[in-house]
Amino acid sequence: MAKVVVDISMSLDGFVAGPHDGLGRGLGEGGEPIHNWVMGGPWTYAAGPPFQASGVDQEVLSESFAAAGAIIVGRRMYDVVDGWGDESPFDRPVFVVTSRPHPVRTVGKTSYTFVTGGIHATLALAREAARDQDVSVGGGARVIQQFLAEGLVDEMQVHLAPVLVGAGTRLFEHLGPRLPRLEQTRVRESENATHIRYRLV
Amino acid sequence: MAKVVVDISMSLDGFVAGPHDGLGRGLGEGGEPIHNWVMGGPWTYAAGPPFQASGVDQEVLSESFAAAGAIIVGRRMYDVVDGWGDESPFDRPVFVVTSRPHPVRTVGKTSYTFVTGGIHATLALAREAARDQDVSVGGGARVIQQFLAEGLVDEMQVHLAPVLVGAGTRLFEHLGPRLPRLEQTRVRESENATHIRYRLV
Repeated sequence: MAKVVVDISMSLDGFVAGPHDGLGRGLGEGGEPIHNWVMGGPWTYAAGPPFQASGVDQEVLSESFAAAGAIIVGRRMYDVVDGWGDESPFDRPVFVVTSRPHPVRTVGKTSYTFVTGGIHATLALAREAARDQDVSVGGGARVIQQFLAEGLVDEMQVHLAPVLVGAGTRLFEHLGPRLPRLEQTRVRESENATHIRYRLV
Repeated sequence: MAKVVVDISMSLDGFVAGPHDGLGRGLGEGGEPIHNWVMGGPWTYAAGPPFQASGVDQEVLSESFAAAGAIIVGRRMYDVVDGWGDESPFDRPVFVVTSRPHPVRTVGKTSYTFVTGGIHATLALAREAARDQDVSVGGGARVIQQFLAEGLVDEMQVHLAPVLVGAGTRLFEHLGPRLPRLEQTRVRESENATHIRYRLV
């Protein structure tokens, strides 16, 4: 069966976004460096992203994409990036966990299916779409926390960015009483991030 | 002049200790895995630590010790480990940040000097004792937070343990408004931890 893999970028102090994230500033105030590794280096919302990872970062990014047959994101994350606009960065089915019904949206080879039945229902649809590939849970924090709390995650890759953000949205909170045991299975590094893989037991 | 180096073990979710740390359980409930890398693998307070790092972990530990001419710790950390008992694990001068005066204590080649004048006064004494070697700030979290907030840290090594503790004492809090910029300078890994070094700018 398809593995469920969490793939998320985090600052050294544990934030996936700085304060006041929103449309046009998806990583919040001072949050840009959390995604330097994806963007190929330092970038700002104002100047726009160069959006070209390189070296180890590109390899790690490509691997994750290649393994993912379907992607799950939360509605807030979807809204904050304006549904990734007119781009089709995923080229595969994306399932959006939401409480507000919305028709399927298709951009290029990317389809966005809005699921109102909670994470279990979303996962069932994503598993079916992913066939024998992974289901990748890409965020935001609240969706990942729900998947972890329900014990649904098989693997996790944390892209640890060398930055202290100081405030914002923490990744590891509200994990509930049944904390998974982690086995560290791989570490790769660039100057922009340390990419660490864990198997959850 | 001597560099000031923070050297600290942290869980993936950002804790240096689980809840209810105290005498005999210095890393709190469920906190033992944070120090597996120092102990050579899984251990418990009940069974006592094997206390023998190996491989990469031992190399990283030896490096840090070799570079440190003096060590700074907080009084709470000192108390929680009962002043490291009759052992002399440091073989060098240790300076304890405290609000309660206490005479110098010597165990083997380790001396503990209790400094009531705050972190700047403590650092001045530690620098003098370290001569041209590093001053290592070993914890607890509150002392490290104070050093970071005052912009006194030149380098930081975080030993990131593959464990979710869920609650306890967070390392990166109360850092104040002047967050340092980090450059990731080295990554080493074992199955027990990812050891990441940062230069603070």
